[in-house]
Amino acid sequence: MTGRSRVVIVGAGFGGLAAAQELESASVDVTIVDRNNFHTFQPLLYQVATAGLNAADVAHPVRGIFQRQPNVTFRQGTVTGVDWETHTLELEDGTLTFDHLIVAAGAVTNHFGVDGAAEHAFPLYGLRDAVRLRNHILARFEAAATDPRLVDDGALTFVVVGGGATGVEVAGAMIELITSVLRRDFRAGELDVDRARVVLVEMADELLTAFHPASRRHAREILEARGVEVCTGTTVERVTATGVRLSGRDQLAAHTLVWAAGVRPSPLASAIGVATGPGGRLAVEKDLRLPGHPEAFAVGDIAAIGGFDRALPQLAPVALQSGRHAARQVRRLLDGRPTRRFRYVDKGTMATIGRRAAVAELPLGIRLQGTPAWFAWLGLHLVFLIGFRNRVSVLLNWAWNYVTWDRGPRLILEPPRRPATDK
Amino acid sequence: MTGRSRVVIVGAGFGGLAAAQELESASVDVTIVDRNNFHTFQPLLYQVATAGLNAADVAHPVRGIFQRQPNVTFRQGTVTGVDWETHTLELEDGTLTFDHLIVAAGAVTNHFGVDGAAEHAFPLYGLRDAVRLRNHILARFEAAATDPRLVDDGALTFVVVGGGATGVEVAGAMIELITSVLRRDFRAGELDVDRARVVLVEMADELLTAFHPASRRHAREILEARGVEVCTGTTVERVTATGVRLSGRDQLAAHTLVWAAGVRPSPLASAIGVATGPGGRLAVEKDLRLPGHPEAFAVGDIAAIGGFDRALPQLAPVALQSGRHAARQVRRLLDGRPTRRFRYVDKGTMATIGRRAAVAELPLGIRLQGTPAWFAWLGLHLVFLIGFRNRVSVLLNWAWNYVTWDRGPRLILEPPRRPATDK
Repeated sequence: MTGRSRVVIVGAGFGGLAAAQELESASVDVTIVDRNNFHTFQPLLYQVATAGLNAADVAHPVRGIFQRQPNVTFRQGTVTGVDWETHTLELEDGTLTFDHLIVAAGAVTNHFGVDGAAEHAFPLYGLRDAVRLRNHILARFEAAATDPRLVDDGALTFVVVGGGATGVEVAGAMIELITSVLRRDFRAGELDVDRARVVLVEMADELLTAFHPASRRHAREILEARGVEVCTGTTVERVTATGVRLSGRDQLAAHTLVWAAGVRPSPLASAIGVATGPGGRLAVEKDLRLPGHPEAFAVGDIAAIGGFDRALPQLAPVALQSGRHAARQVRRLLDGRPTRRFRYVDKGTMATIGRRAAVAELPLGIRLQGTPAWFAWLGLHLVFLIGFRNRVSVLLNWAWNYVTWDRGPRLILEPPRRPATDK
Repeated sequence: MTGRSRVVIVGAGFGGLAAAQELESASVDVTIVDRNNFHTFQPLLYQVATAGLNAADVAHPVRGIFQRQPNVTFRQGTVTGVDWETHTLELEDGTLTFDHLIVAAGAVTNHFGVDGAAEHAFPLYGLRDAVRLRNHILARFEAAATDPRLVDDGALTFVVVGGGATGVEVAGAMIELITSVLRRDFRAGELDVDRARVVLVEMADELLTAFHPASRRHAREILEARGVEVCTGTTVERVTATGVRLSGRDQLAAHTLVWAAGVRPSPLASAIGVATGPGGRLAVEKDLRLPGHPEAFAVGDIAAIGGFDRALPQLAPVALQSGRHAARQVRRLLDGRPTRRFRYVDKGTMATIGRRAAVAELPLGIRLQGTPAWFAWLGLHLVFLIGFRNRVSVLLNWAWNYVTWDRGPRLILEPPRRPATDK
């Protein structure tokens, strides 16, 4: 062991990686802990789920990211708690001691207590979720081709809950997969793919409530023009394996409900013995330190940055900037300097709707729609994707999909979940 | 229903695809049945298992292959038997009637009754096998980094059984993954990757017995020079989760045994009520028809082509040529012409050992070694790989791996199998 300060980072998402990278030139030993041996580029998960990209395109091994940063070590493991007395992080299979701790453990799907959602809804927060949803979508089409009665049973009805950016992106990509790819995959006499439905459900009266009204209208128009049924002002009351009950409507026969309605902090938030707010996120000081634990920070989705009343949204740029800020404060503390408060710089937000269709809202009131917004979205995501190899592969897939209207990786790689009607 | 003849093909491997493609201009309705919705390019599975390629690179959706061949329909399903009276193929979830049947169901791993092999050995015949082996290899390294005592327990000892082309390719790719990629992934103080071992076990006295003695010697020299321990004249007597007992040796602590020792025909061979030979392969006439069933053919790994005594080897070119031949005979029968006997054209055989190392034996006694054989191998596999997109992606991955000595897709995508010592 060296006499160097030990920084432990929990989570290899945007926040954790940014923190570790910011510590590159610091004379500290950094350990990143994550359940997975890879970082997941979450903004593109919906493309994996809709067979536009390979799983490996949006994931990068953590060890590979830090091969050239010798002060970083990776530890694959699941964190169960913190012993603040001894400055020890507790894992399922061991412990790690730290001088400084950065908690960037992210979030998990929030089902808001909807009956049946935990059992039957498909989340879309991790890489396995995306692969599982892809397998399920494709397997439903194969099952319906084998037994066309399954169409009435809901095999080809796909409900997406949540009209935020994720829900809009999933619904848009799904209708594109169906109308431009699967319609060619299945012969006319074999399966009437036109009977497939994508239903986007949103509680509020409009989609993309975080966006300007013009963007909201644009997104809705495009989605509807492409065939998505948009149900705003509607909530999900109950989910089963073959049906969804929406507020004020009859039971909808559907084998698939994609849950894009929201997240809650990682269970770790409530396991480390510090204060959490109404949504369960960790309370943090203005400099992102945990109250009462001046050696520990919380960043990204798990932290209520800015206070419980007006916490920053759970977005990649917030995680990235807060992770970097926490690392900088660790350096200041090591240098004996006072910490600084975190200031989030809003660089805008965007959502893609489908082929040459997106909305983007940039600083200074600049708003883009359609093809320009779509290209902005493509470029930005390519730039932020980690790994040159991944970038080339994603670019290749996108070019292929765009030119051929095809989707390469539409493979059912796991045994399909049996539909309830097969029991 | 049309009045056209119905041809049902069981299996979307090399034999089944070749048969369907050969029927493109025939006035028949073709249905291909496979358990998976994709064709697997088996010769590259070992590269998926050693994190050189993505799973999606070596698989192609069957529907995609035949999008432009309108007389082919795909049916995902598992075949359970044949009712010869009614010309009906029986599936787990339905039936298909046929006028002509082409059985191209392939093979499964043959454990030759070795104690524990079915439970603990890792096969490498399908795409899921390859992904599972990759997850396991990488997870063993992560586990050993967490608890270095696991190295003595066998976490980093990888035994490959079978000194044929598959075994040689797996062992060569594995030692490359370890020495050129994982050695950089793990810090020196964290895990001594040099303690990892790859042991190649072969019952015969030499590797690659189907090759010329010069090729055999070359393969052994290269493998040993790169760090593989080659044990010829050795058999596996017993396999457990953490150990392998080899003939005439002490118990070897090893968490991983890759089974590349051979295959046996798909269980379907014994389920369809026709004659099988000593190895279980289906007996076929000289024209590849099943004896007593003039409307049915068997091709590829499942068939004993050439008679039980000197059946052709279970290789991709045999499957491809025999599948094509069977389809041609179907066309001849429909035209009222007599069938012809199948003649296999041996175009040579090759095995890659690793970076710029391979052996190739071509017709006219031409033998290649080293870099020329390696380039021949690369080019041939690119040509035979199905799908332009897959070819570009594989080429990109190979170029990347070659130039950077890196392996991109080293992701542990499933929960790792727990080592027995964690119980």
